[in-house]
Amino acid sequence: MVDTADPVSNLRDLGDSIDNIDAAIIHMLAERFRCTRAIGKLKAHHGLPSRDPAREAEQASRLRHLAAVSKLDPDFAEKFLALVVREVIRHHELVPRATTESISQSEMNLAGLAASTQSVE
Amino acid sequence: MVDTADPVSNLRDLGDSIDNIDAAIIHMLAERFRCTRAIGKLKAHHGLPSRDPAREAEQASRLRHLAAVSKLDPDFAEKFLALVVREVIRHHELVPRATTESISQSEMNLAGLAASTQSVE
Repeated sequence: MVDTADPVSNLRDLGDSIDNIDAAIIHMLAERFRCTRAIGKLKAHHGLPSRDPAREAEQASRLRHLAAVSKLDPDFAEKFLALVVREVIRHHELVPRATTESISQSEMNLAGLAASTQSVE
Repeated sequence: MVDTADPVSNLRDLGDSIDNIDAAIIHMLAERFRCTRAIGKLKAHHGLPSRDPAREAEQASRLRHLAAVSKLDPDFAEKFLALVVREVIRHHELVPRATTESISQSEMNLAGLAASTQSVE
């Protein structure tokens, strides 16, 4: 993949690729947190539970599979997801939540439904 | 950004976006580790030091700036980089290194030069 005849130049090229990839990932993460902030606001507004262990387990399993296919260590993919989820939980905790008294019965029913399909992301 | 009239549908849409973004990030990470594995092999072959604190500090500062511009928490960007760097170090430690006796004087000089421009990534 890399010409080893000129290691300094090769190292610089690889470093430049890494810088580009990191910039792309940072922008992807920014967009991901835009989504989770919107989810956090929706859930808080409707008094929905912020976490769904089943969805989180499904996400972890899916990312492990994608990692294996792209030859990334699946354990690392799961560590990455855990880091992101910890941050999302921190964000959600900062959003004021609707109280049980302030939400309608239909919203309470919705909470039961949505809790089975959505996690903290 | 999101129509709050149908929260379950909105939550599902946002979850789908998150799944797409996560898939993109996993593939980006796979490509990043392809680069760092190539760097690890080059450095091991030429007996170059695997870490460069100056380059690592520069990367952290650059990612913090990119994060701020894209409205991602700069502290989170730095946590993400730390997670990746820990993994890279683990990979580099698995690559057999050239011993001091097996590398030439010119490569030793190169080591001095390259150490100032490249980090563990």
